[in-house]
Amino acid sequence: MTVTLAELARRFQGKARGNVDVVIEGIASLQTAGPRDIAYVSDRKYLPLLATTKAGVVILTEHDETHYSGSALVVADPHLCFARVAQLLYPLPAFRPGTHPTAVVSPAAKVASSAWIGPNSVVEADAVIGEGAYIGPGCYIGSAVTIGEYTRLTAHVVIGERCVIGNKCLFKPGAVIGSDGFGFAKDGERWQKIPQIGRVLIGNEVEVGANTTIDRGALNDTVIGDGVKLDNLIQIAHNVKIGENTAMAGCSGIAGSAVIGKRCTIGGQAGIAGHIELADDVHITACSLVMSSITKPGVYSASIKAEPVEKWRRNAVRLYHLDEIARRLARLEERLQQLFEEQKN
Amino acid sequence: MTVTLAELARRFQGKARGNVDVVIEGIASLQTAGPRDIAYVSDRKYLPLLATTKAGVVILTEHDETHYSGSALVVADPHLCFARVAQLLYPLPAFRPGTHPTAVVSPAAKVASSAWIGPNSVVEADAVIGEGAYIGPGCYIGSAVTIGEYTRLTAHVVIGERCVIGNKCLFKPGAVIGSDGFGFAKDGERWQKIPQIGRVLIGNEVEVGANTTIDRGALNDTVIGDGVKLDNLIQIAHNVKIGENTAMAGCSGIAGSAVIGKRCTIGGQAGIAGHIELADDVHITACSLVMSSITKPGVYSASIKAEPVEKWRRNAVRLYHLDEIARRLARLEERLQQLFEEQKN
Amino acid sequence: MTVTLAELARRFQGKARGNVDVVIEGIASLQTAGPRDIAYVSDRKYLPLLATTKAGVVILTEHDETHYSGSALVVADPHLCFARVAQLLYPLPAFRPGTHPTAVVSPAAKVASSAWIGPNSVVEADAVIGEGAYIGPGCYIGSAVTIGEYTRLTAHVVIGERCVIGNKCLFKPGAVIGSDGFGFAKDGERWQKIPQIGRVLIGNEVEVGANTTIDRGALNDTVIGDGVKLDNLIQIAHNVKIGENTAMAGCSGIAGSAVIGKRCTIGGQAGIAGHIELADDVHITACSLVMSSITKPGVYSASIKAEPVEKWRRNAVRLYHLDEIARRLARLEERLQQLFEEQKN
Repeated sequence: MTVTLAELARRFQGKARGNVDVVIEGIASLQTAGPRDIAYVSDRKYLPLLATTKAGVVILTEHDETHYSGSALVVADPHLCFARVAQLLYPLPAFRPGTHPTAVVSPAAKVASSAWIGPNSVVEADAVIGEGAYIGPGCYIGSAVTIGEYTRLTAHVVIGERCVIGNKCLFKPGAVIGSDGFGFAKDGERWQKIPQIGRVLIGNEVEVGANTTIDRGALNDTVIGDGVKLDNLIQIAHNVKIGENTAMAGCSGIAGSAVIGKRCTIGGQAGIAGHIELADDVHITACSLVMSSITKPGVYSASIKAEPVEKWRRNAVRLYHLDEIARRLARLEERLQQLFEEQKN
Repeated sequence: MTVTLAELARRFQGKARGNVDVVIEGIASLQTAGPRDIAYVSDRKYLPLLATTKAGVVILTEHDETHYSGSALVVADPHLCFARVAQLLYPLPAFRPGTHPTAVVSPAAKVASSAWIGPNSVVEADAVIGEGAYIGPGCYIGSAVTIGEYTRLTAHVVIGERCVIGNKCLFKPGAVIGSDGFGFAKDGERWQKIPQIGRVLIGNEVEVGANTTIDRGALNDTVIGDGVKLDNLIQIAHNVKIGENTAMAGCSGIAGSAVIGKRCTIGGQAGIAGHIELADDVHITACSLVMSSITKPGVYSASIKAEPVEKWRRNAVRLYHLDEIARRLARLEERLQQLFEEQKN
Repeated sequence: MTVTLAELARRFQGKARGNVDVVIEGIASLQTAGPRDIAYVSDRKYLPLLATTKAGVVILTEHDETHYSGSALVVADPHLCFARVAQLLYPLPAFRPGTHPTAVVSPAAKVASSAWIGPNSVVEADAVIGEGAYIGPGCYIGSAVTIGEYTRLTAHVVIGERCVIGNKCLFKPGAVIGSDGFGFAKDGERWQKIPQIGRVLIGNEVEVGANTTIDRGALNDTVIGDGVKLDNLIQIAHNVKIGENTAMAGCSGIAGSAVIGKRCTIGGQAGIAGHIELADDVHITACSLVMSSITKPGVYSASIKAEPVEKWRRNAVRLYHLDEIARRLARLEERLQQLFEEQKN
């Protein structure tokens, strides 16, 4: 796939500058780009690199235009434009439709003629695989699962029975969708399992990271909205609902029945307690624990940065006496006040 | 599977009230239940829903009986009763015994005649698969592994060589049991691997979540007691011992050689340091780190809740000066005391 | 495999003491060792066990020699020596070279004649599998991947296209190497995926834990240095670089483009923010979050230990008023100073 600067400007509503016939075939960073690559200014601190970049085309804003004399694509949002150019130059790999001879596909499954079922994959009865869907090697599609059109399961993905997956989703290797939720009733000292009969419903254009797990609902369903992006090693418990276009970074987790709004971002290793609600446009920083509902948009944090250990320990040990410190402080204030008053008299 | 209210009352030692011949075939929540569903009052805050529920039967306590005029199953513990009813109505899916033609089973493995080995699964030499065991698709059973009776490996589960799994366990997709522990000796700048020759021993009725990992012991074994329930994405390091009926929530982890008591609960993303011991009936809240042994039952926490970020940062920055604050406070107390004494004289 | 004490002393530059012809065939702890086992004093607190151990040989330091009268191997570093003896006694399991009949190997892949491709594994076109490499059951090797000599993929490992793996590495089950990095550009309310075209480059003698994930770079590569050891359930984001011989414990994570030095250790559940740099020889304790670059070697921490919950909550609630506490303290200091000065006059 190659494209000229002129064509890029046309497609992405940018202004082409310099040699508009330059042919681009790859993306790269300003430092590594060659004459057939397109690069972009991801941060204004990299402007000095424009002096030495060998990129065929640079994407930048009107505001930064004067810093570069070479061929350029001038747009309002270089980051977004770069994403679109990259999508154009690196389309999803094409595949032959069909079923690999080693795949085990139930005769009672409905597989679209334009779909691919990869080697050693298993598709159970009553599963429906949509047009253009790609089921990579070693996947398991449970009974009565629906996989939407153009959805891709890279490799080794498990989709449990009756789950419903939308269109144009991407599942990375090892993702497990629709395993039983973690639901038990106490029975004296023992735990009695509560059968988990809900499903997982996943919208369109959802990305699910490697080894991420999404449990099926207990009674009702776990629901992941359109455009949600989940990084690797995330845990989504039963009956969670995640609003459209929310993005979660790696190793974060959401406990059972929590409801997350739209357009939220959840930082790496952050945790959301069960049975609470986060409004739309809530942003949680890395390693923070949300223990109660958040009703207002905004950034929320409990991130604590690491310090040299001797310094940290000296301070941390005081943490366990904070209440005492606060009480002593209050007492001191009182006594001082008393002293002042005594002196006044 | 269907059952009458009268039969439920008989089986679960409850009192049937109303139309004892009503036929139940499903479980549901009070809001979504229909006339052939059974629901329960999971929390007294839902009592108002009893006015409008369409459930065929509601499970409730004697204490709440007066809030509902329809057919009811009156028991001491509705949550537990609901679990048992659900188990009755949704038994584990039946399966044909046998071996799928794509499975690779060593002739030196012993597979019970009532067990099932699923498509693309591999069973190595000297493995023993018990009566009624279900090895789902794409599983790997290492050499000399023992799988107990009626244990189920949903899909894509790995059990490393020589591990011993009890009866009636459930392993969810992607669980890895018996990978090498993380054991090395420093050799100048490099690490020398210490061969991990222990096993993993898992008791009866243990549930292991999706993509959870349990490492084999270094010299001796890693041991998971009867009735232990592990959620998804949990890490259990080498030589850990977990007592009976302990439950751990998702993304938690236990470092090497830690010993956890019976009936403990470990919250999501909580961590237990290595080489320490937790007594029976210890409960750790979400995201808390246990750094030393706990000898008394009880709830332990280091959970810190997220706050609006400006507020959090204003406070968090003081954390790094807590020791100084405490010292200044002490000095102030001294000076004030001095002042008081001076005034007395 | 058996070996005499005399031979061990020769191989590992130790001093043999006692019966140098004693034959050893296994490793064990001091408590469980029998007459054909070798054990070692891992910590001086275990010296009393020397009185009762049945071990055929004990490895100890010259310093501790007098505490034991039996056959001994006297060395400078018993832990390291034990690792080496264990490696000798428990060599990696041998395997027949070849390809299992159920494996799906592209005719365009180059598989060394001494390598093994296990059952149900898939090797795509242009992949290169080195001499003595072991590809266990159910693995996926993407197109144009290079697997170095004597590298082992235990089972169910995924290596994405074009990734390059060094020699003598060990990948545990469920590890996913080279899945797409988590890279998006905001497009109004939606996210546009940025194609991830970098690779993962892994050095020699790297160990990667079960269900650990290492994402491919966005434009450039993710790079894991020689001798790096990664435990289970670790997330390594795109474009991370990890220096030689760094070791990371389970459930830790590194966000995008972070650069970690050589010989670092990262504790369990610790997190490293994106786009920062850690110097060589930096050690991060468990559950700590590193939010900015660290330029000096040393130990860094934000670990907070769990306390009995009532005590913890009483103190934790004060955390959210720390700034106020600090201000009140400062005010008090001022007023007291004022009082002192007034009194002086």
